[in-house]
Amino acid sequence: MNDLDFHIGQLVIANRILANEGVVDAYGHVSIRHPHHPGRYLLSWSRSPELVERGDIMEFTLDGNPVNDDGRAPYLERFIHGGIYEARPDVQAVVHAHAEDVLPFSITTTPLRPVIHSGSFMGAHVPVWDIADTFGDQTNLLVRNMAQGCDLARCLGSNHVALMRGHGFAAAAQSLIEVVRMSVYVPRNARALMAALRLGGEVKALSQGEIAARAAGYQPYSVETWRAWEYWAKRAGCGHLLGERPVEDARTSNRA
Amino acid sequence: MNDLDFHIGQLVIANRILANEGVVDAYGHVSIRHPHHPGRYLLSWSRSPELVERGDIMEFTLDGNPVNDDGRAPYLERFIHGGIYEARPDVQAVVHAHAEDVLPFSITTTPLRPVIHSGSFMGAHVPVWDIADTFGDQTNLLVRNMAQGCDLARCLGSNHVALMRGHGFAAAAQSLIEVVRMSVYVPRNARALMAALRLGGEVKALSQGEIAARAAGYQPYSVETWRAWEYWAKRAGCGHLLGERPVEDARTSNRA
Amino acid sequence: MNDLDFHIGQLVIANRILANEGVVDAYGHVSIRHPHHPGRYLLSWSRSPELVERGDIMEFTLDGNPVNDDGRAPYLERFIHGGIYEARPDVQAVVHAHAEDVLPFSITTTPLRPVIHSGSFMGAHVPVWDIADTFGDQTNLLVRNMAQGCDLARCLGSNHVALMRGHGFAAAAQSLIEVVRMSVYVPRNARALMAALRLGGEVKALSQGEIAARAAGYQPYSVETWRAWEYWAKRAGCGHLLGERPVEDARTSNRA
Amino acid sequence: MNDLDFHIGQLVIANRILANEGVVDAYGHVSIRHPHHPGRYLLSWSRSPELVERGDIMEFTLDGNPVNDDGRAPYLERFIHGGIYEARPDVQAVVHAHAEDVLPFSITTTPLRPVIHSGSFMGAHVPVWDIADTFGDQTNLLVRNMAQGCDLARCLGSNHVALMRGHGFAAAAQSLIEVVRMSVYVPRNARALMAALRLGGEVKALSQGEIAARAAGYQPYSVETWRAWEYWAKRAGCGHLLGERPVEDARTSNRA
Repeated sequence: MNDLDFHIGQLVIANRILANEGVVDAYGHVSIRHPHHPGRYLLSWSRSPELVERGDIMEFTLDGNPVNDDGRAPYLERFIHGGIYEARPDVQAVVHAHAEDVLPFSITTTPLRPVIHSGSFMGAHVPVWDIADTFGDQTNLLVRNMAQGCDLARCLGSNHVALMRGHGFAAAAQSLIEVVRMSVYVPRNARALMAALRLGGEVKALSQGEIAARAAGYQPYSVETWRAWEYWAKRAGCGHLLGERPVEDARTSNRA
Repeated sequence: MNDLDFHIGQLVIANRILANEGVVDAYGHVSIRHPHHPGRYLLSWSRSPELVERGDIMEFTLDGNPVNDDGRAPYLERFIHGGIYEARPDVQAVVHAHAEDVLPFSITTTPLRPVIHSGSFMGAHVPVWDIADTFGDQTNLLVRNMAQGCDLARCLGSNHVALMRGHGFAAAAQSLIEVVRMSVYVPRNARALMAALRLGGEVKALSQGEIAARAAGYQPYSVETWRAWEYWAKRAGCGHLLGERPVEDARTSNRA
Repeated sequence: MNDLDFHIGQLVIANRILANEGVVDAYGHVSIRHPHHPGRYLLSWSRSPELVERGDIMEFTLDGNPVNDDGRAPYLERFIHGGIYEARPDVQAVVHAHAEDVLPFSITTTPLRPVIHSGSFMGAHVPVWDIADTFGDQTNLLVRNMAQGCDLARCLGSNHVALMRGHGFAAAAQSLIEVVRMSVYVPRNARALMAALRLGGEVKALSQGEIAARAAGYQPYSVETWRAWEYWAKRAGCGHLLGERPVEDARTSNRA
Repeated sequence: MNDLDFHIGQLVIANRILANEGVVDAYGHVSIRHPHHPGRYLLSWSRSPELVERGDIMEFTLDGNPVNDDGRAPYLERFIHGGIYEARPDVQAVVHAHAEDVLPFSITTTPLRPVIHSGSFMGAHVPVWDIADTFGDQTNLLVRNMAQGCDLARCLGSNHVALMRGHGFAAAAQSLIEVVRMSVYVPRNARALMAALRLGGEVKALSQGEIAARAAGYQPYSVETWRAWEYWAKRAGCGHLLGERPVEDARTSNRA
């Protein structure tokens, strides 16, 4: 199996995991930057993530045009991916989802912040992007062109997650495994925070030092990270797509 | 497959989706207006939606009488459907459900309103119908005759969803796919709103312009809408009933 | 199939439904009064409800002794059943469960009351039994003898449900189908009430007239009631035990 | 089957139950003290609990070194187990989990306490261990060495459960069945307590006498305890590993 096939297989797994863990439903999507062409990304055509297979993955230029247009309809909101890849050369994978439990933080002034260790990867600051701020209050809330995708990327800045008002979130990371894991745990962190706030009194959040220590120790293909990937993939019924755990870091080397 | 067979198949799918997505349980029902006879509607006899098959679908006149009475017991509350079809010539499909998460808004004075983009289709205003207002406080809360069905339809007015006090909701739309999608996302919107209200402070709802923009862009058989329909149908175990995505808009043309 | 076999089959179904619908887990139990010997009841030996089969059903006298002691361990808390059957000749079926969502009402002073139509069968008043009131604060909270079972029955009085402080509930009805349905919907009503209370302001409960109207119209083997029974049984994987819907009311006649 | 094989089989069951009941996910682990060598414990290598099989169980000395190092990566946080076994000779089994519903009590000042009978085994006092108190606010929150494991054990003291700030909990008991049961019910108790606190007013907790009475009556291999073990194991798909219920108490005698 060559390098690209490996990455496409992992992207299929990512789709299935996000669906099976309740992060996405009929809507939401996940992409990776093309491992050989940093000016492109890989993303399914307009299918629900749970149904995505190898053959559904298409290649797009950053401005959202299919490299080989075969008539299949792309996701309307693919500009979320292109906008972020353009603004953030370090980012290798992007998730957009409507996960229910983050929505309350997108329509109130209560900030979402990491309070549990598995939520640390969202970082200390989670900005909220309101499409109405730049594009007015007559939009359908969807990110339908590069201007909107770039505006969202600007709001994301150097953070890992941006909430989208009344809509969902966009998450960006340096590896696919990382962005999927973050997408699974951000809603859990949101639930823990909401429940803690209801108990009343001060809520103890992670410290800056703790967030930094966790980020520093992170390895996308470490035993600990792969353990979760394998588990989620098997639960999602696609353990057969897993392959062996890569020994090197896919961020810095090619496997081919 | 002729036109009517197609629509009956879609109605079976709708039943299964609503059950599998937790909108209905043992109770609740979904109908479509008869595609050839606007003075009739199609609805299962008294079966739980998850168990409904093609042969269970019956034809009713708007006043709730079976066109071919073969002795099977109809739903007691079929008058919800007739009442709405009579008052609203634009409506092609109706759902009645007891979805748990909308109930709190039916027994308090807090209005249900769209705060997330997928909830936009309920519209800006969701009236609450209290059967006791017209029929007194000795009823069993069920809509058991046309007078009650018409009263509910009056309360619904030109809106898409009416809550029924201590009971559930009725949803009406111009296509089956639309009413099912609305019924799936109204409870999610309710949960997001409840959680946001508990966080405290102002809750940012969708603007009138956003609601209008989303409604304007809606197409029942667009790729985006069919994507969800296909996904939900496959999850509900009835993907084999799907058939091809209709290319034209079933609201305005016959497929036969 | 004779009368007793039919009832035992229904009791097995009841066990499976209560487990599958999340009313009971490893613990909790359901009984019926013996259809021929009103001084006895039928109840599984000490098995988790989901695992109960025909052969697990045993016969007990009201004071909790097995009619044929074959060495199988009975439920420690079978006295809940005996206590209620002794005090309430009208009761034909009893459920004891720890359903999570009713527990908050057992440890606070907020009364549980019917606010949704499917919750009406619990009746207007749901007393809370605190074992410590009569038996002191050194018990293990379990109902381990007839004195405790009778005390619980006294608290239940002529109501349909009694909460048990820090423990769960006991429900009693005139038929098995009724007590199972009540046990499924009491937790849902509890959730709706909790959510409504959090929204703030007045919560509109069912009126006395509405509760009475619903109780008056209830038939254990009506099409509407059987619809739910069939649905729940099929979901629980024991549709093959269902048999035909009885045409007469099993409360007042024998089927043999 | 010899004694050790039996215990390893039970440990596999425990892993699967904790996963299936939602106590652990990709992360979290469960161990038993070695039945013949009290200075060792048995624990899987770094696998998600749902995937653990007999061959995954390894033997560790209390300081966390594998007795037979075959290159498989151990859990980073195995020092939780060693720390507790060293400090508490009475403890035979330990669980570490991130169960979502206990987390709010680890980041606020609201104490977790038993309010439902199935929660009694956590005991009257549940301390909260904050790794930052001793090790500063630059850690990654994980228990990565014996100093940290021993510090956690010190905080646990003679209690059964310690919360870990922003992270999860550690539970310790005199038998495997006991620690699993406690781990299943501690989150349920947490949910009941949170819901009761939201209802407002005084919350009635279990009395000291009730907690003591329940603890006194506990037998790890009683019919009542085994009933739950059997049920959970079958739900988790590993009923075939169950074997016969031991007649004697495994805490005080060997089965070989």
